[in-house]
Parts: sequence; C-alpha cells; structure tokens
Amino acid sequence: MGLQMIKVGVVGGTGYTGVELLRLLAQHPSVALNVITSRGEAGLPVAEMFPSLRGRVNLKFVDPADAPLDQCDLVFFATPNGIAMKQAADLLRLGVRVIDLAADFRIKDIAEWETWYGMKHAAPELVAEAVYGLPELNREAIREAKLVANPGCYPTATQLGFLPLLEAGLVNADNLIADAKSGVSGAGRKAEVHTLFAEAGDNFKAYGVPGHRHLPEIRQGLSQLAGRTVGLTFVPHLTPLIRGIHATLYARLNGSDQIDLQALYEKRYEQEPFVDVLPPGSHPETRSVRASNICRIAVHRPQGQDMIVVLSVIDNLVKGAAGQAVQNMNIMFGFEECAGLSQIPVLP
Amino acid sequence: MGLQMIKVGVVGGTGYTGVELLRLLAQHPSVALNVITSRGEAGLPVAEMFPSLRGRVNLKFVDPADAPLDQCDLVFFATPNGIAMKQAADLLRLGVRVIDLAADFRIKDIAEWETWYGMKHAAPELVAEAVYGLPELNREAIREAKLVANPGCYPTATQLGFLPLLEAGLVNADNLIADAKSGVSGAGRKAEVHTLFAEAGDNFKAYGVPGHRHLPEIRQGLSQLAGRTVGLTFVPHLTPLIRGIHATLYARLNGSDQIDLQALYEKRYEQEPFVDVLPPGSHPETRSVRASNICRIAVHRPQGQDMIVVLSVIDNLVKGAAGQAVQNMNIMFGFEECAGLSQIPVLP
Amino acid sequence: MGLQMIKVGVVGGTGYTGVELLRLLAQHPSVALNVITSRGEAGLPVAEMFPSLRGRVNLKFVDPADAPLDQCDLVFFATPNGIAMKQAADLLRLGVRVIDLAADFRIKDIAEWETWYGMKHAAPELVAEAVYGLPELNREAIREAKLVANPGCYPTATQLGFLPLLEAGLVNADNLIADAKSGVSGAGRKAEVHTLFAEAGDNFKAYGVPGHRHLPEIRQGLSQLAGRTVGLTFVPHLTPLIRGIHATLYARLNGSDQIDLQALYEKRYEQEPFVDVLPPGSHPETRSVRASNICRIAVHRPQGQDMIVVLSVIDNLVKGAAGQAVQNMNIMFGFEECAGLSQIPVLP
Amino acid sequence: MGLQMIKVGVVGGTGYTGVELLRLLAQHPSVALNVITSRGEAGLPVAEMFPSLRGRVNLKFVDPADAPLDQCDLVFFATPNGIAMKQAADLLRLGVRVIDLAADFRIKDIAEWETWYGMKHAAPELVAEAVYGLPELNREAIREAKLVANPGCYPTATQLGFLPLLEAGLVNADNLIADAKSGVSGAGRKAEVHTLFAEAGDNFKAYGVPGHRHLPEIRQGLSQLAGRTVGLTFVPHLTPLIRGIHATLYARLNGSDQIDLQALYEKRYEQEPFVDVLPPGSHPETRSVRASNICRIAVHRPQGQDMIVVLSVIDNLVKGAAGQAVQNMNIMFGFEECAGLSQIPVLP
Repeated sequence: MGLQMIKVGVVGGTGYTGVELLRLLAQHPSVALNVITSRGEAGLPVAEMFPSLRGRVNLKFVDPADAPLDQCDLVFFATPNGIAMKQAADLLRLGVRVIDLAADFRIKDIAEWETWYGMKHAAPELVAEAVYGLPELNREAIREAKLVANPGCYPTATQLGFLPLLEAGLVNADNLIADAKSGVSGAGRKAEVHTLFAEAGDNFKAYGVPGHRHLPEIRQGLSQLAGRTVGLTFVPHLTPLIRGIHATLYARLNGSDQIDLQALYEKRYEQEPFVDVLPPGSHPETRSVRASNICRIAVHRPQGQDMIVVLSVIDNLVKGAAGQAVQNMNIMFGFEECAGLSQIPVLP
Repeated sequence: MGLQMIKVGVVGGTGYTGVELLRLLAQHPSVALNVITSRGEAGLPVAEMFPSLRGRVNLKFVDPADAPLDQCDLVFFATPNGIAMKQAADLLRLGVRVIDLAADFRIKDIAEWETWYGMKHAAPELVAEAVYGLPELNREAIREAKLVANPGCYPTATQLGFLPLLEAGLVNADNLIADAKSGVSGAGRKAEVHTLFAEAGDNFKAYGVPGHRHLPEIRQGLSQLAGRTVGLTFVPHLTPLIRGIHATLYARLNGSDQIDLQALYEKRYEQEPFVDVLPPGSHPETRSVRASNICRIAVHRPQGQDMIVVLSVIDNLVKGAAGQAVQNMNIMFGFEECAGLSQIPVLP
Repeated sequence: MGLQMIKVGVVGGTGYTGVELLRLLAQHPSVALNVITSRGEAGLPVAEMFPSLRGRVNLKFVDPADAPLDQCDLVFFATPNGIAMKQAADLLRLGVRVIDLAADFRIKDIAEWETWYGMKHAAPELVAEAVYGLPELNREAIREAKLVANPGCYPTATQLGFLPLLEAGLVNADNLIADAKSGVSGAGRKAEVHTLFAEAGDNFKAYGVPGHRHLPEIRQGLSQLAGRTVGLTFVPHLTPLIRGIHATLYARLNGSDQIDLQALYEKRYEQEPFVDVLPPGSHPETRSVRASNICRIAVHRPQGQDMIVVLSVIDNLVKGAAGQAVQNMNIMFGFEECAGLSQIPVLP
Repeated sequence: MGLQMIKVGVVGGTGYTGVELLRLLAQHPSVALNVITSRGEAGLPVAEMFPSLRGRVNLKFVDPADAPLDQCDLVFFATPNGIAMKQAADLLRLGVRVIDLAADFRIKDIAEWETWYGMKHAAPELVAEAVYGLPELNREAIREAKLVANPGCYPTATQLGFLPLLEAGLVNADNLIADAKSGVSGAGRKAEVHTLFAEAGDNFKAYGVPGHRHLPEIRQGLSQLAGRTVGLTFVPHLTPLIRGIHATLYARLNGSDQIDLQALYEKRYEQEPFVDVLPPGSHPETRSVRASNICRIAVHRPQGQDMIVVLSVIDNLVKGAAGQAVQNMNIMFGFEECAGLSQIPVLP
C-alpha cells in the first residue's frame, strides 16, 4: 500500500493555490502529477512561471481542451468560482474523484449560493452529493466521497476555533463574532490595484463588512455544529503579511461557569494530527504555522468574565487551501493522513 | 497672537514618541524648542540619532540634571511610565505646564493604576488634578489645565469610535468588544526580541488577551461616556506595519431600531478638526492617516442586524501620542487647534 | 511677491506621482490647484480615490477633453510616457508653461529615445527646447524654461551621487557602476502581477540588467558632467519597501591620491537646499528622506584603496518625481525654492 | 547504510541559525537529535521558545556544563564567534566531529582574523586543520574532515557567483565588486535597536562600507580560486526581508571576448545538487530559494560590454548557514548529499 501511486491532475495551476498544491504534491510519496491545465499559459513550463519548482516539476501547462484529465484518479480544481461546477460532472461520471478548492460546492442552499456568488449554479445536484472537506468534522464522509468541497480559508480557521464550544453547547450562539485577519496571498495572484505592494504594504484595513462570501459558508458550518441557526458577525481584514490567517473569535458563555475550556479543547482535538491546542495563556502567531498544514488554537477567558476569546491561526494557502486539499486526498485514498504534509513550519 | 512663541522642553526624546514630537514641534509656528533631555545620550546631537532631523533640530540631548526645564512654558514627558509622576510636581509649582505622554496620570483610581502598572504611585494628588487630554471629550477642561494626561494610542482610537454610541445610550454597554490592531512602533524603540523585524515581520498575533494596561484606561473613558460602568473585552494585536492602529469595535443596539447611525456620527464630529466620519459603507485604512493627526471612522450595521461594527483608524504616533499632545498644547495656549498639525497624510 | 498665486493643472492624477503632486501642491502657499484630469475617472472626486486627501483637495477628475488647461499658468504631466509629447506644444503656444514628469523630453538624442521607448517621437523640436530639470545642475536654465523635463528617479539619485567626482575629473569615467535599489512605488499604480504584495513582499531581485530605460538618461547626464561619453553599468533592483531609492555607486580614482573627497562633496553642495552630505563614515538610509525632497549622500573610500563608493538616497516619489517637479516650479516662478517642500522626513 | 543514524548535538540553539538547524535536523532521516545547549535557557523546552517545533522537537535546552556532547557523533556550534574555538579541541580529541557555523575557523591567516574579530584566537592549530565547508569547492576534503568551518552567508553567495569566472581566469581580479543585500535575519536574533521592525522595515541602507568581517573571508576564497590575491570591494546592505541574500557581482573581462559565459556556468555547476544556473536573461529572486538549500545564479553581459554582472541568490539561513552545515554533515558521514534538504522553496 505504501507503494500505491495515484495519478493526479490540477485544473488551473497558475494561482497561489495552484503553486502551493504543486509544491505539496511534488513532495508527496504517493502522487504522480500527471497534468496541469491553464487556458492562458498553455505550453509554458510550470517552472518558468514559478522558479521555485525548477527541477521538481517538469510539466508544462496544458490547454484544458487537450488535458487527459479523464485518465487521472483525482483532479483538483484550483480555479476561480464557477468553473468546477461545469466540469466536475463529466469527470465524476468517468470515475475520477474531484476536490474543488473554489466555492462551487460548499454551500448547500443553492439560492443562498447564487445570491452571494452572483451566478446561476450549473450543477445543483452535485452540491447535494459533495462532502464539505473539513476532516475534523467530516472525516468519515470524506473517506467515501467522490466530490469534496474544500473549505475556504476564513471558514477553516473560524470553524476549528468555534467547534468545541458549539459542539458542547456552551455559548450563546446568537451573537458569535469572528474578527479575522488575512495575509494578502488570500486575495489570489490576480493583477489588481488594491493588493499591490505599495497599496497593501504598511497598511491595514477591514473589508467586506456589509457582507463577505465566506459569511454564509461559516454560518452554515457553525449552524451544523450548534444544531441550530447561529447569529454571526464576520469582519475580515487585509494584513500586510503574505501567508497567514488569524481569527479572533468571541462568544459568550451561556451560564456554564465551571467549565474547563482548556480541557475541552485539548480533548476534542487530541486525535487530530493538524490541530494543536496551545497551553493556557498562549497567543499563537501566524508564522508558527507558516508553510505547514497546522492550525494552532488558544482559548482565553479574559478576567474570568463570560466572554470567551479564541485565537486560531492557519496558513491560508495550506490548511486554508492546498494542504487541506491534500489532507482530504490522503483520507479519500487511504494514505497516511499526514503523507506529504509533514513539513515543519518555516520560522523565522 | 500669531507671533506668540512659547518655550518648550521635552523630557526623554530618544523614543518614537519623542522623535515624532520633535518632528511636529520643529514645524510648529509658535514653538521654540528649548531643551531635550536624555539620561543615556547626553551630549549627542539629536540629529545624529535621528538623521531625519538634520538641519531642522540643532539641539543636543541634555542630561536631565542640567536641563533648564524650569524656564520652559511647557514640558512634554515622552518618558517611560513612572518618570513624570516624580518630576511633574516641581515643574507645576514653578508655573510650568506639563503634558505627560506616558500613563502616569491617566487613571483616576490610584489602586487600579498601581495594580496594572506594578508600582506605587508617587503623586496621587496630581492624578486628581490632571485633565485627560482627549480634546473631543474634554476640550474646555484642557484649555485651563496645568497638567494633561495624554491618552494612550489604543484608548484614543477606541474611545473616539464608541463615543457617539455611548453618549447617545444606544447600545448595550455590558458587552463591548474592542478588537484592536497596532503597528510595531507602538511597542517603542526598545531593544527587544519580539519586535525585531525577523520576529514581527510577515507575522500576526494577539497579545495581552488576559489583560492589557490600556484596558482600565479605555474602560474608564467609556464608563464616563456611558454614565455607568461598562463591560469591555479588549484584544490587542501586533501587526506588521510601522505606524497605525485599526480598532474594530462591536456593540449591540439595545432596541433603538430606527436610529440613523451615519447621521449620529457625522453630527457628533462635525466640528471636530481631526475626526473624519467616512461615507456609509467605507473601510478606513491606516495609511489614509499616516503621519497625520486625523482619526477616520466608519460605522456599519452588517445585514441590518443589531450588531454595530465601528472601524476607527489613527496613526499611533500622531493622534495616538505626539500629535494629540501638540493638539492639547494648542488648546492650552490658545493657538489655532490645527497649528503645526496640518500635514496631509503620506500615501502611499 | 509672497502673495502671488499661480493657477496649476495636473494631467493624469491617478498614479503615485499624481497623488504625491497633489499632496505637495495642496500644501503650497502660492498654488491654486485648478484642474486635474483623468480619462478613466472623470467625475470622481479625487479624495474618493485617495482618502488621504479628504478635506484637502476638493476637485473632481475632469476628462482631458473638457479640462481648461489653457487657463493655467503651469501644467504638470503625470502621465505615462508618450502623452506629454503630443499635448505640450499646444499649451506652450498659449503661454502655459509645462513640466513633464514622464520621459518624453529627457533624452536629447531622438533616435536613442525612440529605441528605448519603442515609439516615434511626436515633437522632436520640443526636445531641443526642453530643459532637463535637475536644479543642482541646471538651475539658471530652469528659471527661464517654458518646458521642463523632470528627471527620472534613478537618474536623480545617481547623477547627484556622481556629480562632484565627474565635475572634478577625479575618476575613470569608462567604468562607472550604479547598483540601484528602488521601492515598489517606483513601478507605479498599475495592476500588475509582479508588483503585488505577495510577489514583491519579502523578496528581492534585480531586473532590467540587459538594459533599462533610465540607462541612456543617466549616461547622458553623466557624460555632460564628465565632458565626454562615459561608460556605465546600471543595475536596478526591486526592494520590498514602498518609497525610497538607494544608489550604491562605484568609480575608480584616476590617480589623484591626495584628494579630500568629503570636502569636495560638502563644498559642491553647500548651497543646495535639498542635498545633504553626511559626515564621513555615514550610511544614509532611505527612511531618513521619506516623504521629503532631500537627497542624502555619503562618500567612502574603503580601506583607502582607489575604488570610491558613493551612497545616495532619495524618496523616489518626491526628489525622484513630484517634489523635484515642485522645486522646478518654484524656480520657474520665482518662489522660494523650498516653498511647499519643507516637510521633515517621516521616521519611523 | 540507509539506516545508519548518527547522534547529533547542537551548541547554542536559541538563534536563527539554531532554530533553522533544528528544523532541518528534525526532518533528516539519519539524524537523532541528542542534545541542544543554551546557557541562558537551560530547562526550557525548545518548542516553547520556537512554537513551530511543537510536536517535532521534544528536547529541552541543557546547560552546556551538563550536556553529554562527548557522546555525539557530530556537534554543530551555532554560537557567537569565539565559542567554538575554545570548545572544539576537547570534542575532536574524543573523536566527535565538529561543524562550526560561526567564523572561528574560516580564516587561515590568524593575524587577519584577530584584527577583524577583535580577539585573540584560542586555537590557531585547529584553524590549519579545519576544512572550509563550501562543498562546491572542497567536497573531497570535507568528506574526511574532522572540523568544518561552515562559510558565512555573504561569502557563500559571492564565492559561488564568482567561482566559474575566477577558475577560468577570465576577469580582471584586481577590481572585483560584490554589492550584496541581506535580509534582516542575517543579523541574528539579538535584541538590538537597528534591527527592530520599526527601524529596518520599509527602509534600506548600506552598512559596514569601511570594512565588514566577511570581506577577508570572501577575499581569501576568491584568491584561492584566482590563484592570486584579488582586489575586492564589498558593500553589504540591509534589506526589509526576513530571509535571503542577493549578491550582485561585477567583474571586467580581461580580453577573452568570445567566451560563452552561460555555457561556462552551466558546465561548472552541472553536477552540483544545490547550484542552479538560470537560463540567459534571467533575474533570480530571493523567494525562489526561500527555506531551501539552493543557490540560483544568472550571468549577464549588459549591452555586450566587457563588464560582467552575476546575480546570485541564497537563503541566508539555509545555504548561507544551517542548510550548508547539513550538506557538509551529509558529505562527512556518507549520506546522500541531499538528505534532509529536499524541501521545495516556499513561494509565495
């Protein structure tokens, strides 16, 4: 079994999620990287666009029309929203399993998805079938899944932070607050003014306060955990770092004054290979998970009052995207869950 | 009156607050900078430590023992906590007015101050006399003050953000949340590991969640505004930018559903020269106030729910320290309130 | 004379050079800002694009077709290369003076210009008439100029650094080297991938080694100084800072062993308001000139050998662009040369 | 042989070189990390200081007096200069092999070392015995070495860049120039003002122009390559990035006009696992080697003139320190040279 190799394709390999997938897959012991597509860059050696991959990834980008994706065991979609929903059905029909790193299959309520994403959904029936790929919540379902909706970056950090509290029913679920801060790579590798170095550097701002696409995704996940519809205020911020998400989460205890929060968190995550609960009083920093698939969490109850503060950090490109996708792949194909994901974070 | 010049001294001019004071005072039309002290750097030309001041500040640092502070009209203390409380009384007795940029006179409750600052207060009687130098709240008292306690950086951004809501009694004051993010200059110009470039760069973290010294200062100010003791959760974060504070503030409406928040904020601040209420839907960014004394604020009510989100940005070294001190000086001495403070923010 | 006001127009105010011009002009005592054009943003209030200008610049962008530029005393072109050469003649004919911040009139050799800029020159006759706006070299000519070609950022830092050596004929002019490093704002406010925060942040690279457009401009200037054609190797680098150029210049002494380089530099620049020669052994840093019009220079002769190393720093958007343009305006209109340019650098 | 494990000790594990060594060693298939010493932090779990190592390095820092270094097969010194020279002899006598990451054994000329490092050398006889650990130059000697002097960061980037030119005798060796730029981690994890985020961030400067300790080391290495004493001007710069060195190297061809530089470089390094010669016209960027042991090089001859420009980038903490030390270990113990060093660079 250790020698089993699967054939993998990547659709849309020119963004940050794509290059991060390639970095991880190229070091994975059980993956043969078969094909990478890009409409705009067909013919270009991947390592010419990303010199970090020189000598490690020898493929060229292939036009999607010519890509033998049907010969893969698994295809990752590292595409903009709205692509996978058009192409996944054909692959699934041929027995190719699919992990979508975009948002096409994350939200079960089609109408809500269409409102937030501003387009008609092309494959509502697949949404029902898709498994939301948060292993800490859905590991068993992922194992059998044909189609995995890989969670967003903010949703991963936020759900893992709130999960023990909501599962245990300890907090008032009507007034949850997620104040989240993201590195600029979260905005992708698109040429845009607001993410230029001279705009986003030495600068800090909130955005999307009236409403952000990750809000319904987080709310859906937290509601599932709580067993009821939660109330959530979500405020994302753009921070001058390249990689990293820091979610600062606020929830009020609903009376259970004697609870040992530290023990609750440690117990909930003790079997999880990629969730690390820090000792009491800790403040996780984003660089402590840089370039790794780890989520580090600390839980606080300042001054013994009833407001709980949870700090949760991930690397948005790894546990928040490509690494979680590889983790899902490992689960789906029966590999060691940590295979290809054991890199120690890069600090400093 | 336009020709009136006052003689000014600065105690402790080697930190970031000090150099920023010098930058502003050297460009002020009514200030003669008489003396700058430093115990460690006596004899050193100021411009040798801060080459940005070459040709603009020709003073040398003077040992505090030799400094003719008594001949000044006004002395700024840009010192660590615990210095001004020992030296202010002598100056005040001689008729020298004092602005302390540290925390010695900010908190009226001496016992609380001693708990948070870990020392015995040397001049409790001056605390009672001191005026808290937030002009938007205490302008008239500042005018006559002999001793001004210049507010902290987080407290400035937070109080200006919450002020209209609390004055109007519109929100539940039991569960206020201030999630604040600061640039690294806020930690001062001390040689410490955690603020090294290779530690704080490309990194984001919360700190002081169990308790931060600005908490009692903010709570005192908000309680004054609310007319009752407020409940506050305050979480500061260290952000990889040099200057800037972004406070993201959360408060729940207490029923007043029809309120026009935008109008409330605009009206409250329409006469304020240094508070700028942005149009509805805005997200102020820290660089929009860089190197200026302005506080920019936006107020949101996401999805029409009852949680209000206020975004408030300042430059921690200007409106959060040296600029506010100069504004207080202007008020105390009858200068134009904007004198020496009209620089346009530096963007990009 | 102190009360003379001139009417000024800015063509192309949406880039970094444009917003920096606006910041400086809005604080200038003798300038009435009359009109700002932008083809793409006509109708938009300037302060909506650049919130740093709220309350300070109340103009809206005007379509170039509707802009009353002919009623201005002076028009700045803060446009891409190739625009001013088409529009300057009409304005000049009407008696409007022109300062071009782009490269259209910088290079006297039309064929060389056309080679490096890849287009046909539309107004060769104006090139002959234009004055190269480096005040330290051409102050008298600038005074009378109708059309000023404002120097590039790298050329300004490099020419000011080499100037005393070449004027004095002390170095071998066949093998000059300019190893220059620029902040990312030098690339402009265009949406491009390579200047994204996640590309240019935490990263350093050279670019344009085979040939960069500033090479012929620098070579022309240095050749004029040397009185002969110089040999120059110019290597620009992209550095993860927002503002600032640091030029490290190398030249070999041609035998004059006894020369006092420090005295040479100090004497050459003693009357210059914006060139600051640092004490022996100094290393100027870019932040020491941030947001100011100053060029700081240090001259070294490491280990007493015959290789001279000159370090020259400017803010690329000020002395390297908008500030130098305002300095040229001051000279052209008989204002104090420092008018509107006396801001102290922002440090930290 | 693939299963051979060696016992390894690290003296001084609290700096950046130390934590990077730990990151690499903890992932090395043939290393058992036995002991880590720190005088100041004895008793502290390593992972408490460096949370990136949680779950991966379970050792505590041990006081040097108590450390069983004599039971190791290999000891790394990641200490300040002047420590290893006092302790290496005892270990060597016991058959423990030693790699010093500091400068104690790098310079053969004891008098010159003492001048630059400002102390008396404690073990001149070991200097003679030590092998300079640049594998691309000294691989065979390293294989048998008991004591390896691991090269400095600037010297590694510079020597690898100049090596083919000097070995081939193609350039004038009297006037070599190395204009080098380093990330701030190169200054170490010491609490100092000039490397604070608010000092080194958004800032660029040269330093050490009159003389830097890496100058004699580079000169020694280049002279060995050239077969004669070279003339070198070395100017280091501090750059606002965390990791990375970019050396821009200048040398004049001495007449050999027809030489194919690209072929020369490719041929010289074709067997080297960690030197990557980029295609003609390339500009290597520091992030393309971030967190990896690779050196990427491009060679240019701008405008076909006789000045050669070589661009050479490394990660200062990996190929410039800890990674090269592991590479040396691999050679010394007969492991695969790439063992534990196959991480793909982290980009973005």
